[in-house]
Amino acid sequence: MVRAGIIGVTGYTGLELVRLLGGHPEAQVTYATSRASIGIPLRHVVPNARIPRDIPVEALDPDRAVEKADFFFLCLPHGQSMETAAALFERGAKVVDLSADFRLRDPNAYARWYGEHRRPGLLAEAVYGMPEIYRERIRKTRLVANPGCYPTGVILGLAPLLKGGYLQAESIIADSKSGASGAGREPKPNLHFPEVSGNFSAYNLAGAHRHTGEIEQELGSLAGEEIKVTFSPHLLPVARGILSTIYAQPSKPLDEDSIFGVYRDAYREEPFVRVHGPEERLPSIKDVNGTNFCAVAARVDSRTGRVIVVSCIDNLIKGASGQAIQNMNLMTGLEESTGLVYDALYP
Amino acid sequence: MVRAGIIGVTGYTGLELVRLLGGHPEAQVTYATSRASIGIPLRHVVPNARIPRDIPVEALDPDRAVEKADFFFLCLPHGQSMETAAALFERGAKVVDLSADFRLRDPNAYARWYGEHRRPGLLAEAVYGMPEIYRERIRKTRLVANPGCYPTGVILGLAPLLKGGYLQAESIIADSKSGASGAGREPKPNLHFPEVSGNFSAYNLAGAHRHTGEIEQELGSLAGEEIKVTFSPHLLPVARGILSTIYAQPSKPLDEDSIFGVYRDAYREEPFVRVHGPEERLPSIKDVNGTNFCAVAARVDSRTGRVIVVSCIDNLIKGASGQAIQNMNLMTGLEESTGLVYDALYP
Amino acid sequence: MVRAGIIGVTGYTGLELVRLLGGHPEAQVTYATSRASIGIPLRHVVPNARIPRDIPVEALDPDRAVEKADFFFLCLPHGQSMETAAALFERGAKVVDLSADFRLRDPNAYARWYGEHRRPGLLAEAVYGMPEIYRERIRKTRLVANPGCYPTGVILGLAPLLKGGYLQAESIIADSKSGASGAGREPKPNLHFPEVSGNFSAYNLAGAHRHTGEIEQELGSLAGEEIKVTFSPHLLPVARGILSTIYAQPSKPLDEDSIFGVYRDAYREEPFVRVHGPEERLPSIKDVNGTNFCAVAARVDSRTGRVIVVSCIDNLIKGASGQAIQNMNLMTGLEESTGLVYDALYP
Amino acid sequence: MVRAGIIGVTGYTGLELVRLLGGHPEAQVTYATSRASIGIPLRHVVPNARIPRDIPVEALDPDRAVEKADFFFLCLPHGQSMETAAALFERGAKVVDLSADFRLRDPNAYARWYGEHRRPGLLAEAVYGMPEIYRERIRKTRLVANPGCYPTGVILGLAPLLKGGYLQAESIIADSKSGASGAGREPKPNLHFPEVSGNFSAYNLAGAHRHTGEIEQELGSLAGEEIKVTFSPHLLPVARGILSTIYAQPSKPLDEDSIFGVYRDAYREEPFVRVHGPEERLPSIKDVNGTNFCAVAARVDSRTGRVIVVSCIDNLIKGASGQAIQNMNLMTGLEESTGLVYDALYP
Repeated sequence: MVRAGIIGVTGYTGLELVRLLGGHPEAQVTYATSRASIGIPLRHVVPNARIPRDIPVEALDPDRAVEKADFFFLCLPHGQSMETAAALFERGAKVVDLSADFRLRDPNAYARWYGEHRRPGLLAEAVYGMPEIYRERIRKTRLVANPGCYPTGVILGLAPLLKGGYLQAESIIADSKSGASGAGREPKPNLHFPEVSGNFSAYNLAGAHRHTGEIEQELGSLAGEEIKVTFSPHLLPVARGILSTIYAQPSKPLDEDSIFGVYRDAYREEPFVRVHGPEERLPSIKDVNGTNFCAVAARVDSRTGRVIVVSCIDNLIKGASGQAIQNMNLMTGLEESTGLVYDALYP
Repeated sequence: MVRAGIIGVTGYTGLELVRLLGGHPEAQVTYATSRASIGIPLRHVVPNARIPRDIPVEALDPDRAVEKADFFFLCLPHGQSMETAAALFERGAKVVDLSADFRLRDPNAYARWYGEHRRPGLLAEAVYGMPEIYRERIRKTRLVANPGCYPTGVILGLAPLLKGGYLQAESIIADSKSGASGAGREPKPNLHFPEVSGNFSAYNLAGAHRHTGEIEQELGSLAGEEIKVTFSPHLLPVARGILSTIYAQPSKPLDEDSIFGVYRDAYREEPFVRVHGPEERLPSIKDVNGTNFCAVAARVDSRTGRVIVVSCIDNLIKGASGQAIQNMNLMTGLEESTGLVYDALYP
Repeated sequence: MVRAGIIGVTGYTGLELVRLLGGHPEAQVTYATSRASIGIPLRHVVPNARIPRDIPVEALDPDRAVEKADFFFLCLPHGQSMETAAALFERGAKVVDLSADFRLRDPNAYARWYGEHRRPGLLAEAVYGMPEIYRERIRKTRLVANPGCYPTGVILGLAPLLKGGYLQAESIIADSKSGASGAGREPKPNLHFPEVSGNFSAYNLAGAHRHTGEIEQELGSLAGEEIKVTFSPHLLPVARGILSTIYAQPSKPLDEDSIFGVYRDAYREEPFVRVHGPEERLPSIKDVNGTNFCAVAARVDSRTGRVIVVSCIDNLIKGASGQAIQNMNLMTGLEESTGLVYDALYP
Repeated sequence: MVRAGIIGVTGYTGLELVRLLGGHPEAQVTYATSRASIGIPLRHVVPNARIPRDIPVEALDPDRAVEKADFFFLCLPHGQSMETAAALFERGAKVVDLSADFRLRDPNAYARWYGEHRRPGLLAEAVYGMPEIYRERIRKTRLVANPGCYPTGVILGLAPLLKGGYLQAESIIADSKSGASGAGREPKPNLHFPEVSGNFSAYNLAGAHRHTGEIEQELGSLAGEEIKVTFSPHLLPVARGILSTIYAQPSKPLDEDSIFGVYRDAYREEPFVRVHGPEERLPSIKDVNGTNFCAVAARVDSRTGRVIVVSCIDNLIKGASGQAIQNMNLMTGLEESTGLVYDALYP
């Protein structure tokens, strides 16, 4: 039984971890911290979750943490997470960091998007936690940088084509639409219900969103060459779900059947990627919400030659806490899908 | 041309006043204050409004206010509004106060629901700003207490029956459902988009909502006897609109046709009340959103004898800023519906 | 392993049964019928479900049905269901009928709300499938009438007080608000997305909704006297969830603590009823959506003496397919909550 | 006073025309037809509109039509509209056709996207009804092809850059997101409320949407060369509004200030186009819903060199009925914005 500690439990990703671990047969939350809610029983903080052994929310104490738990999920803001990750890692614990602090391998890239990195020495230990790409390395590490929500959908949407060398590096545009929970649990004017309800908007266009760097690092690594993308996030009037519509120019002519073959082969063994074929309808966010699945479909615009990929995830599950548990399963030798098999509600 | 000043312009009711006055042929915003946004041009604060003569947002200065404007709308929190109302009233201005500060005629009732009243002497000057009931008094006063959003719908829904003595005083239940803009523009955890989206909840049940006292005062005044109601507010996952389903036991047997006659007669001349007859479909919030209308329908449950009234308003228009302008029109001798004729969008 | 057949699989309740049975460790869908989609593999009809052994959608053939399955869920329109139920029941099968055909014990009551009953002889065999009230009888029957969605929430909301004799029989009003999936999967003008989006409406007021008879039968049975209720359904702009706000006059003075005690005692052993105490926040539909739970809270309006009960269910789970499986578990000797333990998504 | 006839009044665009004309000071609906609702008073069909002189809904009779009205709006399905347009045009009337029948100047293009054109002779008479591009020709014609909703947003979003020769012809991608009213008023499974609520999906990707041909015709005409676009429509869970995010590669280096200058200059005199500058926030659909405005902003992704344009319209107003009235105003010599000045609701 994995004893799991959640650092920063009161945000949406922390709460979702508690809920998912409540249904996990081989892991249990044994430690939980937050700056707020200290002393409150965890079950009051997460009333929607099964919490077999109730524990209080505490202030973080790394020494006590590693007594109480062996495996940690860090749900802290970027910049704050690196020190805590270091403290727990140095005490021998296994860590999945859900912040951006260990996602960018190059500290200069980190500095550009987030600010100075104060634990650059630890970057070499960190593995980017996307099992579909780094499964074997995740199994062996003690520090995983859990991917961002937007990058998860975009990278899984493009990986088979980039790995196969099918795309022109400079041609990629990702037009992504996310539910509002992706922006976190803290109330803000732009996330106030009356503002978002019935509305739809673009934000942080033209390279202003920090996930751009992360997307480019991983796409570049898959392609074996530098890649610059145009990444456009949008805010949907729904609580959960990201759909990315991704455009790219192929480097050789492709038809839909052959592209489908590429995806099907790439993801045939993947427990959490579903490929919709050319005869199937396109995936939508309700197909994956509540699940750890990424659903992908590719189309070819024969008139312009472009490839168009649609990729859907639940931003809080495959885009955050579900993928974190998938990583935990790998890092602790459990079967990868343990505790993660849920079906989407319909309708 | 009425020169209108808006005190507290950056909340939803202040912004809605600016928008509505932008389309008003006989009034113009000439003064606007806020604690925030000082110095910013009003048109930047209200980009959706026509602002013929641009003015800056200022800090409130009563002397300057009465130089710049003759008529004032107070969009301040209760407790803060009474002093400002007094300052402007004493300087000879006409005032519509959108807060609760002058709605309760009895300072003890005010104390019970809101806290001590510091300007009780002014209560006698104030007229409750519901034109359908107090039209002649509104025409003659310089201080109007603009009704609350929930009370507007409930009172208009019951007035014809209570005035006619058709209802048992102790039998009234108002089950009201409001869009989230009724709670104001300030971001709060319970109004964060992901919390409200796809959700529906009751709150402040069992007499905990402050509008209860206001509803009871006016219903009691209509009935000529003390009335205690059960008032249950609920939060709808929409930006605008209140639908109240109101239950009461008649004091004499009634059928739907005769009730319809009572409503039709009561509201025949009213420019902003629409009565749906027994053969028409029930009104819904999209029938009135964007308009100053209250739509009402009454049904009789022949199995239990109860009367059931459905009443719909746009909480920011007939429930706040539209009714405030309706009052302004009356107080300044303009035709009552001037600048207030809009049709609901469909769909 | 229960071999389950679903008759009328292409509606929302049929699809939800397939999804829930896909996660049930002791049951499996082995037969599925529909008038539409004949010949199509079930997994194409229900892509969001795990279907361990794929089967085609067939036209109903009772003889073949009882070869292929032992337990049947009938998801047919009322009026059509009774004959099919009879055919399967007579062939020795166990049946849960999700239509209204066996809910009203009195064929005259059925005739009043739905039309003539053509299998009145079978009514005596049928048990009303609410385990919290009829658990022992459900265990022993072969024919269960699965409750309607609105009745489930209202009855569970009132049962403890009515059983205890705490309420005046003629005082009950149920103001219920339902998500749109309660109206079924067939497209209709009043359920067209642009009509419902951003809207809220009442419908079938004043005793016009057929669930009124079912509610009255069960409330009367709990109270031991005839009960007439005022039942008011409303349409929420959400896909799932029912919240009922229920009003009643107590027959003796009650405070919130003693009422809480009544509910807590009544539901202490219930696996699928959650009672929110006076210090807890009121339940909302997202607390129960995706689960088989009914969440209940009671408040007392000390000013009017009224009891106000809030009751929430997912209309497709506890209000239909989940409760049907709960009944199946009881009828087949399985642990009652088998395959039904899910946590609500938050947010 | 323009006497306006609406052919096919019971769809969303017909109803919106009635509503908008109800507020138009120089026009009045004097004739209305539909295959359904024949004989019903128009005010029952459009209860949200002011109908000064009530008229019945009739079956279409061209001779009677031109007696009753001088100006016609055709709200018929493509394929049906061309004959009616011809009948009215030949009788001397002025016609705005809201279908696709006269939008494509080349009958072969029409055949490719819609089927054979049976009135090709009339194509030369028709002017594409986008006043920002064809104002002078619209003033002089008697037959206007009112643009499609998606094309309106995309063309206005790109016109200044294409006209100026700033873009590479083969680089354009339009990723468009529309509210559900764009699909019309007829209930369909994919527009059933529970299916769209909380969901988001792409459809008709890769050149499958018929608006592609119309977009290409107009963009090509602006650019003076053939243009092929990738156009991707998506379905938003809102009733109204289209936001298009448009990507293109400039043919010469551009910065945001100079692009802003291009748009500002192009649209300086336009009554219904708003350009958001580089310092302003991006437009969203609620900025334009309920209005005839198109709001546009352009950004430059300096990392990839791409231009990104965001364009927002209300699909039923600027994208259909509002633009149709703008065309009517031009065709009848009225001031172009007559009856079309509305402010967006906020929030």
